[in-house]
Amino acid sequence: MTKVTPENRYRNNAKAIEIGNAFWNLSEKHGLAGIVADLDGGELRRADGHRFVNFSCCSYLDLDQHPRVIDGAIAALRRFGVLDHCIPRARVQLPALLELEASLGELFEVQVVSAISASVASAGLLPLLGSGHLSGGRRPLMIFDKNCHVSMSQAKPACADETEVLTCRHHDLDFIEDMCRRHPTVCYVCDGSDSLGGYAPVADLSRLQERYGLYVYYDDSHSLSISGRRGAGHVRSTMAGLDERTIIVATLNKAFGASGAAIMFGGQSHETLRIVERFAGALSYSQPMNTAAVGASMASAEIHRTGELSTLQARLRQKIALFDSLVPTPQAGAGFPIRLVSVPDTQVVELGRALFAAGYYVSPVFFPIVARGTAGLRVMMRVGQGDETIRGLCGMIAGFATRAGDAA
Amino acid sequence: MTKVTPENRYRNNAKAIEIGNAFWNLSEKHGLAGIVADLDGGELRRADGHRFVNFSCCSYLDLDQHPRVIDGAIAALRRFGVLDHCIPRARVQLPALLELEASLGELFEVQVVSAISASVASAGLLPLLGSGHLSGGRRPLMIFDKNCHVSMSQAKPACADETEVLTCRHHDLDFIEDMCRRHPTVCYVCDGSDSLGGYAPVADLSRLQERYGLYVYYDDSHSLSISGRRGAGHVRSTMAGLDERTIIVATLNKAFGASGAAIMFGGQSHETLRIVERFAGALSYSQPMNTAAVGASMASAEIHRTGELSTLQARLRQKIALFDSLVPTPQAGAGFPIRLVSVPDTQVVELGRALFAAGYYVSPVFFPIVARGTAGLRVMMRVGQGDETIRGLCGMIAGFATRAGDAA
Repeated sequence: MTKVTPENRYRNNAKAIEIGNAFWNLSEKHGLAGIVADLDGGELRRADGHRFVNFSCCSYLDLDQHPRVIDGAIAALRRFGVLDHCIPRARVQLPALLELEASLGELFEVQVVSAISASVASAGLLPLLGSGHLSGGRRPLMIFDKNCHVSMSQAKPACADETEVLTCRHHDLDFIEDMCRRHPTVCYVCDGSDSLGGYAPVADLSRLQERYGLYVYYDDSHSLSISGRRGAGHVRSTMAGLDERTIIVATLNKAFGASGAAIMFGGQSHETLRIVERFAGALSYSQPMNTAAVGASMASAEIHRTGELSTLQARLRQKIALFDSLVPTPQAGAGFPIRLVSVPDTQVVELGRALFAAGYYVSPVFFPIVARGTAGLRVMMRVGQGDETIRGLCGMIAGFATRAGDAA
Repeated sequence: MTKVTPENRYRNNAKAIEIGNAFWNLSEKHGLAGIVADLDGGELRRADGHRFVNFSCCSYLDLDQHPRVIDGAIAALRRFGVLDHCIPRARVQLPALLELEASLGELFEVQVVSAISASVASAGLLPLLGSGHLSGGRRPLMIFDKNCHVSMSQAKPACADETEVLTCRHHDLDFIEDMCRRHPTVCYVCDGSDSLGGYAPVADLSRLQERYGLYVYYDDSHSLSISGRRGAGHVRSTMAGLDERTIIVATLNKAFGASGAAIMFGGQSHETLRIVERFAGALSYSQPMNTAAVGASMASAEIHRTGELSTLQARLRQKIALFDSLVPTPQAGAGFPIRLVSVPDTQVVELGRALFAAGYYVSPVFFPIVARGTAGLRVMMRVGQGDETIRGLCGMIAGFATRAGDAA
């Protein structure tokens, strides 16, 4: 009998699950995971009546609950008469996706291809990058940022079957430049905006792109809508324009308030866009965004064209500033709506429970999902959180910090 | 400067795209791909007014256009007030997915976990199988059927980083049994129902499962709803019950008429289902089925509980029988609604164009996507196709065959 020895060169389920599952089991045991609740007036309500405000939701502008977005979804269902008419879009398609792509393309001044999710987009695009089909036929050395979201890093084994794959330290510009000097074609893969807060050094990377022809693949899901003119997101609004050396993937399921994802291209030929449609993995062979998602996205895009978006962006900045004025974090002053509040390992679950009991849901992160000594709360702001609610949350966090300080 | 030499052990974009793109370019050049049309009274209508019946759509029961399915989508949007409230379901979730999973679980007498698509389900589950997390902690030798859908075969590189991966000839039971004799744990991955017609040898595989403890992973997307009691699909309805050695993935986007996918499990522990929710790739970290898809699926599930489903299944059988009575194919008499009509290489595009001009859209397949000498039309039946329409299509095909025979 043969025993299998895994390579675990690019992934290691045994290790990831051993660590992650202990975290999740503890979270669930303490009532901080596995929660089921209905939305009710912007708050969440458990079946037993317990109400709480969600400080762990990525719908930063609350567009997910916007009546026009929901009406847009319903109007599209009525108009097209199906959620999807199952046939590859390369053969026959309803006009739904094309209209959405045209609208988002105009909105963000890019070429847009839709996808059912950002992770499906990355799973389909990254191997195409690996085989050189999005880099002029030259297979690039692919450098994945150590911290890039798992939806990108999980593509490493497939990419490694098409080209050479490396992992670099977080935003290691020197390493990337060094590789650009040694390899004719290099592609760097990273988050445009991190799920734990933080932005990619887009301007620095643009300089490497100009100097060496570097390709960059960004997932900018966490900044779409909340950042930049018309909500184009951190990467797009930092760059003057997109050329064929930059690809941005962004979900339409966070601040954009709908469902699905947009892939932003610049200067790609009709031929290349057809290759994406036909060969970018599940983009070609699996279901597309359904018409409800398309209609909601069209409606959200219209909101992005009005002054309402700037108002919502400003309101979010005000919420973030209010939080920063009450609870100090390393992220204070940054534009993104994510804050990491440091809490001693032994107390983070207790604080998370106390906050939840008082009506605030935040995500506690602790060992083994982060190293000992780095536990804390991940707090996410939304425009729908009342100022008094934010003050209430911050008061409890500050009071806890004071007591912890007294005890120390 | 370093030049990259790809391994291409499990995938080869260069080859796949060279072959596939020539096929697609020819199809599009001849107006048989890249078509945009609206649904109108069950037919498709191009912007220039050209109307045609879709014989290349997998919504075999036309449930995608069923008013109750669309109303179900709208009702769910109204009830939940969002398409999705973006937060990992392992933390906090609306009751939408749980209600759907309970409904489908009861319907098909299995444990159900939902996914945004069957391809996302497979991309997430297959590496978990590879690492032994769905096979009692023992890493299996994974055998992928040569013909299994690309949504499964594309997971080979990730699986190969977790365990040993082989590819076998189509339904090669002897090979699978031989591997079962030599390896303590084996998992076979195949289509339950093929996209080109044909079924997996489920009874034979069940015997290997009983004898050797073989695990089998099926994608049964093409037979859900049209096959078996309550539309449980070919695999589920062939097996008396599911145990933890069988996993069936099936899209809800084909005959089921909605959007999303169902994963069917049997006898899995709460702990294992939690591991799926938390670690099966995009099932944990990316967006779930949106509420419109959930509502449509709940409505379709209700239809599956009534006599209407048996009526639709019988009507589909009648359409298939009508086709079989008029055009001979190797599939004649089989229960699935897909037929491959052989047409000489030099004439398949011409026939496809003539059929489309007359109001019938079928998918022509030809070199280089299939070997020379094996070109043909892939015809897919639906209940909404009128008998006169089927007669019209078959008359043209038969007339073409007669003329081709005369000319030969």
